[in-house]
Amino acid sequence: MSKYKLLKEEAYECNRQLPELGLVIFTFGNASVVSRENSVFAIKPSGVPYKALKPEDMVIVDFDNNVVEGNLRPSSDTKTHAVLYRQWDGIGGIVHTHSTYATAWAQAQMDIPILGTTHADHLTVDIPCAPVMRDEMIKGDYERETGFQIINALKDKNLSHLEVEMILIANHAPFSWGESGQKAVYNSAVLEEIARMAAITMQINGKAPKLKETLIEKHFQRKHGADAYYGQQ
Amino acid sequence: MSKYKLLKEEAYECNRQLPELGLVIFTFGNASVVSRENSVFAIKPSGVPYKALKPEDMVIVDFDNNVVEGNLRPSSDTKTHAVLYRQWDGIGGIVHTHSTYATAWAQAQMDIPILGTTHADHLTVDIPCAPVMRDEMIKGDYERETGFQIINALKDKNLSHLEVEMILIANHAPFSWGESGQKAVYNSAVLEEIARMAAITMQINGKAPKLKETLIEKHFQRKHGADAYYGQQ
Amino acid sequence: MSKYKLLKEEAYECNRQLPELGLVIFTFGNASVVSRENSVFAIKPSGVPYKALKPEDMVIVDFDNNVVEGNLRPSSDTKTHAVLYRQWDGIGGIVHTHSTYATAWAQAQMDIPILGTTHADHLTVDIPCAPVMRDEMIKGDYERETGFQIINALKDKNLSHLEVEMILIANHAPFSWGESGQKAVYNSAVLEEIARMAAITMQINGKAPKLKETLIEKHFQRKHGADAYYGQQ
Amino acid sequence: MSKYKLLKEEAYECNRQLPELGLVIFTFGNASVVSRENSVFAIKPSGVPYKALKPEDMVIVDFDNNVVEGNLRPSSDTKTHAVLYRQWDGIGGIVHTHSTYATAWAQAQMDIPILGTTHADHLTVDIPCAPVMRDEMIKGDYERETGFQIINALKDKNLSHLEVEMILIANHAPFSWGESGQKAVYNSAVLEEIARMAAITMQINGKAPKLKETLIEKHFQRKHGADAYYGQQ
Repeated sequence: MSKYKLLKEEAYECNRQLPELGLVIFTFGNASVVSRENSVFAIKPSGVPYKALKPEDMVIVDFDNNVVEGNLRPSSDTKTHAVLYRQWDGIGGIVHTHSTYATAWAQAQMDIPILGTTHADHLTVDIPCAPVMRDEMIKGDYERETGFQIINALKDKNLSHLEVEMILIANHAPFSWGESGQKAVYNSAVLEEIARMAAITMQINGKAPKLKETLIEKHFQRKHGADAYYGQQ
Repeated sequence: MSKYKLLKEEAYECNRQLPELGLVIFTFGNASVVSRENSVFAIKPSGVPYKALKPEDMVIVDFDNNVVEGNLRPSSDTKTHAVLYRQWDGIGGIVHTHSTYATAWAQAQMDIPILGTTHADHLTVDIPCAPVMRDEMIKGDYERETGFQIINALKDKNLSHLEVEMILIANHAPFSWGESGQKAVYNSAVLEEIARMAAITMQINGKAPKLKETLIEKHFQRKHGADAYYGQQ
Repeated sequence: MSKYKLLKEEAYECNRQLPELGLVIFTFGNASVVSRENSVFAIKPSGVPYKALKPEDMVIVDFDNNVVEGNLRPSSDTKTHAVLYRQWDGIGGIVHTHSTYATAWAQAQMDIPILGTTHADHLTVDIPCAPVMRDEMIKGDYERETGFQIINALKDKNLSHLEVEMILIANHAPFSWGESGQKAVYNSAVLEEIARMAAITMQINGKAPKLKETLIEKHFQRKHGADAYYGQQ
Repeated sequence: MSKYKLLKEEAYECNRQLPELGLVIFTFGNASVVSRENSVFAIKPSGVPYKALKPEDMVIVDFDNNVVEGNLRPSSDTKTHAVLYRQWDGIGGIVHTHSTYATAWAQAQMDIPILGTTHADHLTVDIPCAPVMRDEMIKGDYERETGFQIINALKDKNLSHLEVEMILIANHAPFSWGESGQKAVYNSAVLEEIARMAAITMQINGKAPKLKETLIEKHFQRKHGADAYYGQQ
């Protein structure tokens, strides 16, 4: 029996939830879960519809993009996942979708402004939109460069990947991550809902002001600070 | 057996309906039901996903925010519920959601204008949006102050909580209430639908006029006046 | 056994479909089916949620609004149905909903412009929006007057109720009808979809032109003219 | 047993998916699958609701629109399918829907601009909107002319039907095709999602720029070029 059985099941479970949460159709997305102990991650195979997916289809890949176990070709976005796992300690899972509203903001090439506490419950800044990639990056090792584009976009804005767990890539779509695969899935659903609320807010009032600092601080600390009092311990 | 068994079941049933009605995802919301006889209310535990929720998980809290029964920490919004139950006689249940369209209006910091009879069937005025809270309130006992913000917003507009059973908090989201938990759930779904209709109406015709007084009066009296003739007795 | 058993079952079936088609929530709407032979119609009882509805709950009412059979109070909109059945030969069923997009156009107080063949497959003119009712009508026998408002709006535009089977009432919501209850239900779903397509079209291109006459004529005749060739005979 | 049994089952399966994917209501659409060997195609019967549809209801038609097998009248759009099958080698299935967002763009009489990689994953140009048909075409053999309108719109823009597998007809609705019926169904769902994303993008940022050439090229080649590396093999 594969030593990666549990890892595959976890990655399968994350992928399975994406269409159920309305975040992907057909093959538009992929989730992975990492094993830090073994320096590998389990990821969805490329181009396999979610309906047909089975736990044993998950592909085990190392941080140099070598397939360690599995009969299928891994997601075409595998190199992006590998870069992020290698560069960022403390993340356990990554999700990429083309969810409708988040993708629309990416196509609009705009950060999603922080307009309310639903947003502030999850992060204290606008959801960043990484700039359109330079031609050399696109023509080169595209998916690997996508990983660096994400990392650099956070660096340029002086943001930590432990505090900002979601991003848009201009003209492309969102990526999210978290301490576990399950948290990354949660973040991708939260991002889509925040993106939808923000689009509707701007339609109702094109001059809606951003959330003020005290309210941002308060809501984030309720859930995330040392004195957090949201949830069970 | 707990003397609060029925109260817990009622609160559970109200919470259970929120995701089914499309008003919440994950843990975004909470419903409570009060026992006036015992001066306590049953409320959702904090941060527990709706799917995993069981009737016995409900937490019994008194109007001073003391947990009277229950092993879990109550909703982080518990103090808001407590303030409203203490200050307002005649309400039996409270619901808080971050439903998409109502939250978008809250983020737009605008009252929802009374544009049609769907609205007038439920209240005779614009659905009020309480102003953004002052910094002292946010930094202080935030959730308790949220309750007072709601109470004061109605007072400032000279509105009765028995006639206006729903409100938006600017930059945050809606609260609704009613003579029972079930009525509060109903009101939160009605609010979301009115908010959605109003957003679409304004997109179609940015100058859509408000409903005229005679029509407001007529529709409200059909359902609520002494001569109401809607429903069964 | 009631001689109206079949009529009640037919009306029940029409009402049952309204929430399934996403056209109503809670008690927001009503369907009726007429028996021309007996000069009565079966209609939904007032304020009963669709979930709880049973065929035997339907109320049999004559064209003077007298309850002929049934233990429940009929829909508060019963008089509107009665006026239409009495005035218009050749209609077998009526449906009233507050479906989201159709209601938004009614709130916008605008006819729905004929922008495409989906619309022309069903009628050759803009979907009319009857004007806001005069105060005397509202303060008087409101629901009866609503029926006359519908009849007069068609007359004023020189439209036949056999060709235009749907209308909006300004600030209120849509009514639809047809040769049977089932056709009236179909028309109310078609109206909602046309209303949704038109709202999105205007958002994409605020200057979208109306459909030209030859195309209107062609599509309508495919389905409705003497040489109709759509469907099975 | 009919020699077309398998062809009918395939066409039935394609039609069955259309309402499940949210692309049609009632009878708004039709799918067909071709047998190149026999120069016939199986198509949905006209005006039969999807719910009531059975595999044996499919009608076998040749490229001159003669019914070869079947008791029902074929779809009123049959001639459009026949023209496309006759003129275009290499297509195995055709789907016509009135899906909401694609139809709204058709009513807006606008090409859908290529705004992101979701679009570029499937085609490298704007999704074309064929112009409104001339009066002679409409008054003549309308459905046959619709086929030529599609063929000519691609020719006028110098596009190949093997690279662009979807189109809008101004004021009408979309058609899509592909190497198989299943691929045509897939394309019609992808078109609706791209249309929805584009409408929301333009609402968020009316000046959103189109995707740059390097990114278009890269994403298309990932899936379609000689060096494609998306999917399995």
